[in-house]
Amino acid sequence: MTLFGPDEPTTGPSEPGGRVRVRLTVAYDGTGFHGFAAQPGQTTVGGTLAEAIEKVVGHAVSLTCAGRTDSGVHAWGQVVHADLAPARGRLDLEALVRSCNAMLAPAIVVREAAVAPVGFDARRSAVSRRYRYSVLNSPTPDPFLATTAWHVEDPLDLRAMEQASDPLLGEHDFSTFCRRHPDGGSLVRRVFDASWTRGDGGLGEEEVLRFEIEAGAFCHQMVRSLVGTMVDIGRGRKRAGDMAAIIRATDRAAASQPAPAHGLCLWEVVY
Amino acid sequence: MTLFGPDEPTTGPSEPGGRVRVRLTVAYDGTGFHGFAAQPGQTTVGGTLAEAIEKVVGHAVSLTCAGRTDSGVHAWGQVVHADLAPARGRLDLEALVRSCNAMLAPAIVVREAAVAPVGFDARRSAVSRRYRYSVLNSPTPDPFLATTAWHVEDPLDLRAMEQASDPLLGEHDFSTFCRRHPDGGSLVRRVFDASWTRGDGGLGEEEVLRFEIEAGAFCHQMVRSLVGTMVDIGRGRKRAGDMAAIIRATDRAAASQPAPAHGLCLWEVVY
Repeated sequence: MTLFGPDEPTTGPSEPGGRVRVRLTVAYDGTGFHGFAAQPGQTTVGGTLAEAIEKVVGHAVSLTCAGRTDSGVHAWGQVVHADLAPARGRLDLEALVRSCNAMLAPAIVVREAAVAPVGFDARRSAVSRRYRYSVLNSPTPDPFLATTAWHVEDPLDLRAMEQASDPLLGEHDFSTFCRRHPDGGSLVRRVFDASWTRGDGGLGEEEVLRFEIEAGAFCHQMVRSLVGTMVDIGRGRKRAGDMAAIIRATDRAAASQPAPAHGLCLWEVVY
Repeated sequence: MTLFGPDEPTTGPSEPGGRVRVRLTVAYDGTGFHGFAAQPGQTTVGGTLAEAIEKVVGHAVSLTCAGRTDSGVHAWGQVVHADLAPARGRLDLEALVRSCNAMLAPAIVVREAAVAPVGFDARRSAVSRRYRYSVLNSPTPDPFLATTAWHVEDPLDLRAMEQASDPLLGEHDFSTFCRRHPDGGSLVRRVFDASWTRGDGGLGEEEVLRFEIEAGAFCHQMVRSLVGTMVDIGRGRKRAGDMAAIIRATDRAAASQPAPAHGLCLWEVVY
């Protein structure tokens, strides 16, 4: 099994080579996984999903995902592609979904499977990614949000956090909020949307503060680091009016500690 | 430690005996517990909570709850009372909540603690209990609802289920939906409210069908048995118009299999 190996030539439904590129929409509870990307000796979402698909199709499978989520991060709308060989000339995607979910649910659920358009690449064809971060702001924790929301006891000033999210829009060097690229790559990213809203919680009646951000792409730990900084603004430890200067600093010392992984969810990938 | 032992005389804030009756509102994820009521050799919500309180107050504690939830059933608003001895003349309820949650969260969370009015009894003073049952009606499961909603793949007719819930209102013998009392006690109960609604799911964007029922008291397995029967009506296996006759049958053979425990939550207790 090769995961994330060297790129293979793209194969579409009418391509020679006998394989069909399939696009999967995948939700997962990241709690028990060391992130998406397969790593030797670790239980990962990508490794676990590829193994299940291999059992169904009977050949080695390489997965490409739209966003490589970190350890403990969830997804509702992760998109993955794989090139699959039809069995006896037929690729039964309904049966593939059913078999994968029988093996993997509830931790990993394949929500949809479809033949991809010619030239589709889950990572390169993506126009933008949308992440959602959930903060439970209440004096006591909530058993039903324990794995999906960061519990913050201090009362947060939502208006200050809303105000702090405005300067994120547009193209910026996000070095303040990201780990350096090992190969020195650019940390300039374009943010299309960034906003805080008050939403419903899970089973309980708790209100949850939700941060949604959509960008062409994200640097490593960017959303968690932004949320950590904005929650400090909500606590009154930093000022909303300083957010533009914090971005311009391009220095990680200007940001707060990243928010914990379990509040983060890859919500949607736009193509 | 005696849990649910013989009733002790009620002690109020001004009672002699030195103990103060405290009322706790408790939420829990019932997944890992063999129900609320303490049983030897089993991990129960009541046993675990009593042990934590005993560590804080330094004496044996007996808990009385409003509704003895079964194995795997959740609670958002369980109410419990306990008679506690103030340490050095003082009962610090804020510290009690903080210490219990530090030991027990996120599985069990004490949401509130207050000195109970004189004569208060969590079980006997309750006017009604409200339960909520969640059904995820979708072709694929949802990782974020796995422990709190029953996943039903067959498309359900919500209108038929709403119609079937109408005959539940009022006073009925619920023998069709309940296990016989070991001591032959009455299974007549008064239902104040029973309705199905479409609600939001957890982290995902799934819609969840929610059944809420409020009654003076419930017999054993009553809500799960009602939901199992109404979901069969939603599937078209039984007819909504037959619900009144199913109730009148006072025969468990007329009901469907009880719905699974993990969709059920003790939502609120009214005093």
